[in-house]
This record gives sequence, C-alpha cells and structure tokens, in this order.
Amino acid sequence: MEYRFSNKIANLKPSAIREILKAPSDADTISFAAGNPSPEAFPVKELAELAQKIFEEEPVAALQYSVTDGYGPLRKAIADRQKKVFGIGRDFDNTIVVSGGQQGIELLCKVMCNEGDAVAVENPSFVGALNAFRSCGARTVGVPLSEDDSGLDTDALEETLSSNADIRFLYVIPTFQNPAGTTTTLEKRKKIYEICLRHGVLILEDNPYGELRFDGEEVPTLKSMDEEGIVVYCSSFSKILSPGIRLGFVVAPDPIAQKMVVAKQSEDVHTNIFFQILCYRFLTEYDLDAHIRRLRALYGKKCRRMLDCLAKELPPSVKFTRPQGGLFVWCTLPEGTDAAGFIRACVDKNLRIVPGVTFNADTEAPSRCFRLNYSMPSEAQIEEGCRRLGEVARQFVKS
Amino acid sequence: MEYRFSNKIANLKPSAIREILKAPSDADTISFAAGNPSPEAFPVKELAELAQKIFEEEPVAALQYSVTDGYGPLRKAIADRQKKVFGIGRDFDNTIVVSGGQQGIELLCKVMCNEGDAVAVENPSFVGALNAFRSCGARTVGVPLSEDDSGLDTDALEETLSSNADIRFLYVIPTFQNPAGTTTTLEKRKKIYEICLRHGVLILEDNPYGELRFDGEEVPTLKSMDEEGIVVYCSSFSKILSPGIRLGFVVAPDPIAQKMVVAKQSEDVHTNIFFQILCYRFLTEYDLDAHIRRLRALYGKKCRRMLDCLAKELPPSVKFTRPQGGLFVWCTLPEGTDAAGFIRACVDKNLRIVPGVTFNADTEAPSRCFRLNYSMPSEAQIEEGCRRLGEVARQFVKS
Repeated sequence: MEYRFSNKIANLKPSAIREILKAPSDADTISFAAGNPSPEAFPVKELAELAQKIFEEEPVAALQYSVTDGYGPLRKAIADRQKKVFGIGRDFDNTIVVSGGQQGIELLCKVMCNEGDAVAVENPSFVGALNAFRSCGARTVGVPLSEDDSGLDTDALEETLSSNADIRFLYVIPTFQNPAGTTTTLEKRKKIYEICLRHGVLILEDNPYGELRFDGEEVPTLKSMDEEGIVVYCSSFSKILSPGIRLGFVVAPDPIAQKMVVAKQSEDVHTNIFFQILCYRFLTEYDLDAHIRRLRALYGKKCRRMLDCLAKELPPSVKFTRPQGGLFVWCTLPEGTDAAGFIRACVDKNLRIVPGVTFNADTEAPSRCFRLNYSMPSEAQIEEGCRRLGEVARQFVKS
Repeated sequence: MEYRFSNKIANLKPSAIREILKAPSDADTISFAAGNPSPEAFPVKELAELAQKIFEEEPVAALQYSVTDGYGPLRKAIADRQKKVFGIGRDFDNTIVVSGGQQGIELLCKVMCNEGDAVAVENPSFVGALNAFRSCGARTVGVPLSEDDSGLDTDALEETLSSNADIRFLYVIPTFQNPAGTTTTLEKRKKIYEICLRHGVLILEDNPYGELRFDGEEVPTLKSMDEEGIVVYCSSFSKILSPGIRLGFVVAPDPIAQKMVVAKQSEDVHTNIFFQILCYRFLTEYDLDAHIRRLRALYGKKCRRMLDCLAKELPPSVKFTRPQGGLFVWCTLPEGTDAAGFIRACVDKNLRIVPGVTFNADTEAPSRCFRLNYSMPSEAQIEEGCRRLGEVARQFVKS
C-alpha cells in the first residue's frame, strides 16, 4: 500500500543532530555534536536513594495513573524555585509539568497555531523547536541575531512582525542561546517585550540553560518583566538533573496553561509520575543549588578549555562566540569558505560537529557556521578535537 | 490580554473522566469511574530491585538523552513478545516505543490527517482517542457497535467509508472494548479488514487490554491478519505493569513507523529511558507471564463479583455487557429513562460512574449508557457500589 501522510509531516526531516548521534562511531571518534549534559553530571547516588524510598513509601502513587497538569507538590516546588531564582510567576500565572521542555514548546504551538499560521524565531535557533513548529503545520519566520552577539536584531523583529500578520508568537532563547551560545542584553530584552506587546504577539521564552551560568552577571528573564501576561516560560530538569527522565515545566498565564493541559492529555495523559515524585523529593530533601554549583564549575572549566584551544588552533578569520554559560560555542567561517566541504573533512577526521544549516529557519538557506558542544567531551577530547578542527581550518580557510 | 487559540484546541474539552477523578472524595466515595489497574497489581518488589540494579550497573545510559524510536533491546523484546502472544509483526513492520498507548494514537493521527480530515471510530469509543483526533483537528465519524455485542456494525462501516472520502483511518479496540467491554468476533474482524483494504483506509488497532483475558477463547488480532500493511497496532504496559511510567508501543509498517518517530521527536524527544531499560529487564529477568496470570485471576474475580451484584441489584430492563477480559462493564438504561438525572443521583449517593455521552463520537448526541470499572474498587466496594446503583435504578427505571 502507498501511504499518504499529512502535509505537515510529509516534509519534516528527522533532526540532523539525532541522526549524527545515531551514526556509527569508534574509540577515536570525538563528538562536539551532542547537547547532552556531561556523564559526570548526574547525582546518581542521591537519585538511587530516593528511588528506593519511593518504592518503600509510596509505590502505588508512583506507579498509578496521575493528573495531567503534574504532581501538585512538584508544581508548587517548581513555582517557588522559579520565583526565587528568576523572579518569575504572577497571580495570573500557572505552573504545569511537561515531558521535557520539548513538549512545552510543541504544546504552545498546537494550542496557538492553525495550520499555515507562523511562528517568529531567532535565526539560527534550536532545531527541536523549529521542527516542533513545523510538525504542527506552522511556518517558521527567522529573525536574525545581531552580529555583535547582543541577541535578536530588534529592528528586524519590528519589521517582521509588521509585515507578517499571521505570526502567533515569537520563540526565543535569550540566555546562552542554542546554538549561538550568546545572551541577549537587558536593553534588548526590554525592547523585545515592548515590540511584542505592541503587536499583540506572545513570547515563548525557552530557558533550559539559565541555571548554568559560569561567568558574567545574571540578566533578568523576559518572564520576570511580564506584567501583561504575554510571556510563556519553558524550562526543564534536563540540564540540571537528567535529560533521560524527560521532565520539564511551563509557567504561563492560566488560560494558556489550561489549554496546554488539555492538549497534553491527548499526547501522553501525564508525565512519568515516578520521576515527578523523585524530582520533588530531590528538590526538597537534597541541595539542588550545591549540585548546580558543581555543574557550573564543571562546564565553566570545559568551556574555558575549549575557548583556549580554539584561540590556539583556529585562524583568526574563523570567529567564535564566548559563552558565559550553557553548553555551546558557535563558530563562523569566513566568507567564501566551502562550509559543506569543511564539515565533511571533519567527519573524515572522526570529529563530529553540527552544520549551521541545521538551525536555520529556512532550511534551504546556506550557512557558514557550525556548533560545538563542550559539556559532553572530556578535557582531553576537547583538546584533541580542537586540534583536528584546526587542521581542517588550515586546509579550508585562507588566513 | 485576550488569548486566541487554535481552532482544534479552542473547543476541546478536558476528559470528563479525568475531571471526575479530580473531584473531591471522602472515605464513603466509591468510584467505578477510573480505568486504573488495581493498586494490588503492581510488582513493586521486582521493580524496586531492578531500579537499584540500573542505578548500580548502567546509571548514565538510564539518565542521559536517548534515541527517539526507543531503547533497542526493549523494541526487540516487545516485537518478540507480540509475535509470540498475538502473531503480530511481518518483515515490513517496525516496532517503536511511545510514551503510553495514548501517544501512539495521537501520533498516527498527526502523521496521517490534515486539519479537517476525518477518522472513523467505533461509537462509543475511548475518549482519550477521540480527543487525540480532535486535538489534531480531525473530525470523528462514529460507526455504531452492533446490539448483539459482536463488535462494529460492518454494514454501517461499509456505508460510512463509502460516503466519507476524507476518512484517513478506522480506530478500533476489538478486544475488551473501552467502554463497551465487548470483543469483536473473528468473522467481523475479517470483514472489517476486507472493507478497509477495499477502501484503502488504514486501521488503527488499539489493544491495551488484550493480555487481560479471564474467560472465553483468544480471538486473533486484526494486525495478525495484516498481509497488506494496512494495520497500525498500538498497545502499552499500562495495564500489565504500570500506567504511571507511561510506556507504550506501536507495531506499524515501517514507512508509517518512521513518520511517527519524526513526529514523536518534536513531542518529547524520547520516552523516559530509565523505565524503558527497567521494562526491558523486567521482560527478560522476571516472569511477566506469571505476573499476568495473577492479574487475570484478580480481574476475573472482581468482574464476576460485579456481574453477580448487577444481576441481583438492577431491574432486568437495565442491560449490561458480560466482558471476557479487560476492565469495563457497559450498562444501558431502558428507553425513556432520565439518564442525566440517573448520573446525578449516583453522584448524590457518593457513587462515581462515567456517563455514556463521554464516549460519543458526536458530543451533542444523547446516551442512555454508562461505564463501570471493576479493576480499581475492592470487592467490598463493588458490592456496596452496586447496591447504591440498584437504589438509583429502582428510583429511575420503571421495571
């Protein structure tokens, strides 16, 4: 039988990154491609202790069906923590649990967009979000990041919202952006909020890396400025506890949160309740802040190592961002470089990096960029990987 | 700010059952409303042992990001078991892991239906599936179940498929149907397969209760007849292991499975990997069949108790089905009964049942039916609940 698929899915490609991660590898392969936490980053002993306690003390609650909006005590613990750490959450907001930040992103698009509606996105942006919007039948309209690493080009945002009446919301990762690694300045955040408010366009603020700052000063979240109920805030425990447990959350004006819950019910009924309880108990019985301080130190060290190696190995004409947190460095090859050839040459040297085209709102547009991850490789691998990158760069880039 | 939602979500109501379950209850409340496994049904000791082993032996694999189609060894173990138990799976099929059977249902609709397309469903049918189709912007077109409890009315199916060219697939629960508790005969299954094949319409066969037979003879699944690759088969570990862990699977022709994986990537990246590994180890290190035999004995006993009590308490004009497995009994009040008043009177007696309208393809259509669950209440609660039901029936039904 010939199968005919829905328009929105027929042309959707699997994430290039997930495909890269599935490719065969050997002991010599070095991957800067993943967005994974470091394998050293999981508090295994504590999680094991809690799991055992849950099986002893509340097994039925942890294994039975549960409510769609999330385990009540966890929702409250998350709301309290977001208030304390990021100044987030007003009377009109509600906090719900989702199956990873990814689900929060997809659900907002589902509840807001009819097929053919549009979502404005930073260009480049997180491919998982771009694909989520596409999987709902929405168009992605790219707004470029400024060349000076200050975040979204707000003039371009103004122009985009003025000329596209069907944009239902703007998706941004203001802090330690994926893939660019940059952080939007406070001034620009205020400007973004003002522009979106004026155009009646919601903001989806994705902040999965916000707790992973190892350098510089905190910048207030967009959600902390949200007096008018136009910001939906999405984050997760993937980068601070474990991504494998698929546990995220959304703080949104209650009418939006309610609709997201209705849509979530149809997707997976609820998020794995065992790990919701476990996460709640971790938040209340252990010291998450101390754990996060360890992660910050670990990632800060790895990032500085990567930046040092890149400075040493790459010709000056290859530009790269200097993140103050998060997981990624974003590199831009000089004009005229054969970027596709560059990527292939890295593959030939057993080095995996993610080509910039992956993150483009317009998948047909070219890119001279690539993304590097420093959380997953060891420091020795960072050093050796950058050495290989330097070899390829000296071959492809006229310095 | 006034929020404008997508058409598909704007009119979608939360599941009436989940709302009933959220209502306040006291010690005297008896619920026949849930679809939950019995609290005695969870193999807590075994799960606790395995969890501890996983934290000791493979913590990073169980906490790190994983692949979207599911943990390889689990996919193989599921495929092997489905082949052995239900004769399911041909060379053209693939087996993927999803976050509960609910996600499999929603994903098929997402990959097959544009907004406005239709899905044919048994009427009545599982409300979670109906809402999943609605949440994708699809219309649900009901095909009645036959009065003789033999399953779908196949003449009506022929007529429905002939007159609705936009039907993309037929959704059925042939074994221990939810809510009706009935099992489609082999003859009718063959007829359903033949009709759908002839019309070029896919079949989504949902079989969450198939392993829970406590009476009568096995009837082959539709998927076991699938020579032509027109059946997508969906099931889960919710009713045989734990619903709280949200672990289901789909066996589908590979091109369809691939598209479902792409769509799943955008919804939740992958299913909780810790419990995928745990489930795999349960399947290979413990005796699932012995566990299922215990469940069958437990539910068979509870079901017989409920049927005995209903026969004793209800006037003969109230009809009810006699399930050979699964979790539900379906009752039909005689014509002319005030069904809404009946339900309210049950609520007043602290008895929760699910009104039949909940399961209607057309939410505006009336229903004289209601659904009873026997897996969750104790035998004493079954007895007392049926007594209350009898009191209400004697008040509302002229015998």
